[in-house]
Amino acid sequence: MARFKTFDTDEALDRATELFWANGFEGTSIQDLEGRMGIQRGSLYHAFGDKQRLFLAALDRYDQVVVRRLADKLAQGASGLAAIRQFFQARVDAAQDTAHPRGCLITNSAVERAPTDPETYRKVRACLAEIEAAFFAALTRAQKAREIREAADGRALARFLTNSAQGLAVLERAGVSRSFLADVVRVTLSVLEGIERPNRAIHPPQGGAR
Amino acid sequence: MARFKTFDTDEALDRATELFWANGFEGTSIQDLEGRMGIQRGSLYHAFGDKQRLFLAALDRYDQVVVRRLADKLAQGASGLAAIRQFFQARVDAAQDTAHPRGCLITNSAVERAPTDPETYRKVRACLAEIEAAFFAALTRAQKAREIREAADGRALARFLTNSAQGLAVLERAGVSRSFLADVVRVTLSVLEGIERPNRAIHPPQGGAR
Repeated sequence: MARFKTFDTDEALDRATELFWANGFEGTSIQDLEGRMGIQRGSLYHAFGDKQRLFLAALDRYDQVVVRRLADKLAQGASGLAAIRQFFQARVDAAQDTAHPRGCLITNSAVERAPTDPETYRKVRACLAEIEAAFFAALTRAQKAREIREAADGRALARFLTNSAQGLAVLERAGVSRSFLADVVRVTLSVLEGIERPNRAIHPPQGGAR
Repeated sequence: MARFKTFDTDEALDRATELFWANGFEGTSIQDLEGRMGIQRGSLYHAFGDKQRLFLAALDRYDQVVVRRLADKLAQGASGLAAIRQFFQARVDAAQDTAHPRGCLITNSAVERAPTDPETYRKVRACLAEIEAAFFAALTRAQKAREIREAADGRALARFLTNSAQGLAVLERAGVSRSFLADVVRVTLSVLEGIERPNRAIHPPQGGAR
């Protein structure tokens, strides 16, 4: 006879994910997890295994929910360039005066655990590859629509955008101002605008042709 | 009569800094610190206070040694643009196939502790401001030397470069390939090149004037 579950596994995992996202692996205790997930240690171990297995399940959950949603948004709409702009603008808009900004679980895990835990390393690298691929696909769409030049190096640009997103996640975590993030995003996107309109620098030249 | 010190304080602090840099605050135990610093708990507490005080001293040490050295390099040489290029090229060159890449202690600390520890937050923000100011000064030098256009927004560009450096520290920690980092740096620097030569896109147009 199957064991009767007194809690919703997905909801419990979501709560664990939020905790790891905010406080990291080392900064989250089993006691913290029990409290937030609303289940006791025995049930937690029975459902998820140890803390390491629960953390890896949280990374998978984040991948399936958050990273997938970002990739889906980058794949939407006729304009690849507009989708990329919206991705970055959303990062600025999301930055609020919250006391404990969470940043991005992939960024946080890359920094905290990728160098020392092979399982975390593999999942972080897989997520970074997904993000890069989503940018690449949006850039390819933009090239086909002639929003950016066809000769542009899509792979290098996708890596550049992936790096910008990682930097923004660090700066968000460090609590920098919204105007700081907006400056970063404006210059980051100017790279694509430069490709879109080769004769235009970051600031439109006075009287320049456009 | 002063207590006789059986260890060199600076050297012990350097070793503690290396440990926090590699493994973070939570990932470093007092036992780890005793072993690496070569001193016993009592002496450690006497010289540095508790783990929190030692961590903050390590951040100060990193600021005075590593961040200061980077800022000094950005201030050297006749060309501000060359100094910025060298800063980023050094990030690519430093990326080796090391098993446990350390990344940057400021980035690591921003992610791990800035949201929850006010003292770490203040030191991280001060270091980020130093990095931004060093980029700003190099950009200003480049503007005065007419390497980049005088009308360019130096503050926005300095913030953009600060963000790129933070992203690179995350990607280094995640162990991405040297070619990945090189792609990121090439596109990042193209922003400055675009300002230097407004009519040149990332890839020189075939037969275009230059």
